Amino acid sequence: MFRSREALSVLVSLLNTYKVKIQYIGTSYCGWQIQPSDKTVQGSLNKVLSQICKTDNIVTLGSGRTDSGVHALGQVVKISMPLLIGNEELLRALNSLLPKDIRVLEVENVNESFHPIQQAQWKEYSYLFSTSRDLSVFHKQYVAQAPTGLDLDLMQKATQLLVGEHDFKDFQCVGTEVNSTTRNIFSCKLDPYSENWGPFPKEEEIYVLSVNGNGFLKQMVRLIVGTLWSVGQGKVTLEHLESSLSAPTGEKLGIVAPPNGLYLKEVFYP
Amino acid sequence: MFRSREALSVLVSLLNTYKVKIQYIGTSYCGWQIQPSDKTVQGSLNKVLSQICKTDNIVTLGSGRTDSGVHALGQVVKISMPLLIGNEELLRALNSLLPKDIRVLEVENVNESFHPIQQAQWKEYSYLFSTSRDLSVFHKQYVAQAPTGLDLDLMQKATQLLVGEHDFKDFQCVGTEVNSTTRNIFSCKLDPYSENWGPFPKEEEIYVLSVNGNGFLKQMVRLIVGTLWSVGQGKVTLEHLESSLSAPTGEKLGIVAPPNGLYLKEVFYP
Repeated sequence: MFRSREALSVLVSLLNTYKVKIQYIGTSYCGWQIQPSDKTVQGSLNKVLSQICKTDNIVTLGSGRTDSGVHALGQVVKISMPLLIGNEELLRALNSLLPKDIRVLEVENVNESFHPIQQAQWKEYSYLFSTSRDLSVFHKQYVAQAPTGLDLDLMQKATQLLVGEHDFKDFQCVGTEVNSTTRNIFSCKLDPYSENWGPFPKEEEIYVLSVNGNGFLKQMVRLIVGTLWSVGQGKVTLEHLESSLSAPTGEKLGIVAPPNGLYLKEVFYP
Repeated sequence: MFRSREALSVLVSLLNTYKVKIQYIGTSYCGWQIQPSDKTVQGSLNKVLSQICKTDNIVTLGSGRTDSGVHALGQVVKISMPLLIGNEELLRALNSLLPKDIRVLEVENVNESFHPIQQAQWKEYSYLFSTSRDLSVFHKQYVAQAPTGLDLDLMQKATQLLVGEHDFKDFQCVGTEVNSTTRNIFSCKLDPYSENWGPFPKEEEIYVLSVNGNGFLKQMVRLIVGTLWSVGQGKVTLEHLESSLSAPTGEKLGIVAPPNGLYLKEVFYP
């Protein structure tokens, strides 16, 4: 699209910059990040922005990449585009053109120096899973199937070991180069979730894991969930988990839990 | 599939009969009723039963046809098939082979005289709608978009006029021949629905209409909802609704509300 990095940076400085908060159902997307052939959330957003601005000179940057099938309740995106338009007007234009599984919640005009990745102070993810074999059809898209017979008390104890600054080298998948694998987890909570929704039958065995931290490695939350499941199954002891966090060996303690239970809930900027 | 009605009835008398309760998300189906080319719930069920029984000699009969896009929490189906199999075993076999948006909740062995349409004592439908323009992406598949600015108190009054035995001639769409258009509505309630689900944002303006009756005409519940919306918008008065129920003219008082808010909730047999 652009002949050089310099041309791109000159162009960007002439653009208007918006910070938007979006929500999406990840089920039918190959993740956030734009790809040449697969349907992605960023690809869909860029397409609609090009329609609105009648040009391809659009630059979008998300606060982080969500994987294929992962949902978002509050993904934050920086949009740089040549059209100057009111916030409310942009919100309405986007929502009228975007597919119905993507929705813009908020639009804010920001300084071009805004950086949605570097300036994020914390991020919060939620992970919904069920230990029942009989999950309702209405929940399957949104709640992951966990192994049955988990020791939830033990898992509760394990969540507390994850809190704090640790080297999460054993909790990442390859694919993204990072300078450091140390991250600070501010809170990690496992709660039963038993409210019912609409006319749907009450589901008794749904749990929600909420993790809040200063940053997350590739598939880190899903590896945390998989590890907690291993703990709950008695396959991994609390001592084993503790030593993995204090002296990583590169050995994973659990599976990468399925994407359908994961939600990027909130990204906070100071 | 069968050469004559007689051959069919002889065959059916040799089959084993099951009453099953199923749940489905109607979004990707052209309704319940089997069709030569379109994907339907009955078509998908028959296909899986044929796989299990290794024959096409399967007869299924639902308690009623749900339209394209309509969901079910408790559709009841009579299955007649040549294979004798335990209830729990049939349930597990069906759930392992059915698409993930269809799920069998209960299987019961019944007498071949069981008739899911004629023997139903009452049926209950729920209809979820929102009066907010900003419905979350997670609700859109399951909650219909109603007009904004509805007078809900007036709609509450209108629901009471629908209760009782009436000629619902103005509340049906053509397509199914019926002997009588008189139906008895045992209860009709409109309630605010404001519980939140999982990590999803709380939605303040969702309402649920629950209608219980001895039978329903084609698209009757959706026409009731459309009529209530007309009442809420001030387009139809309570007097107008009353006269339509006491002396039908063939004129509809509202639109057929969208299918995505409708749930066949329960079918009751004595």
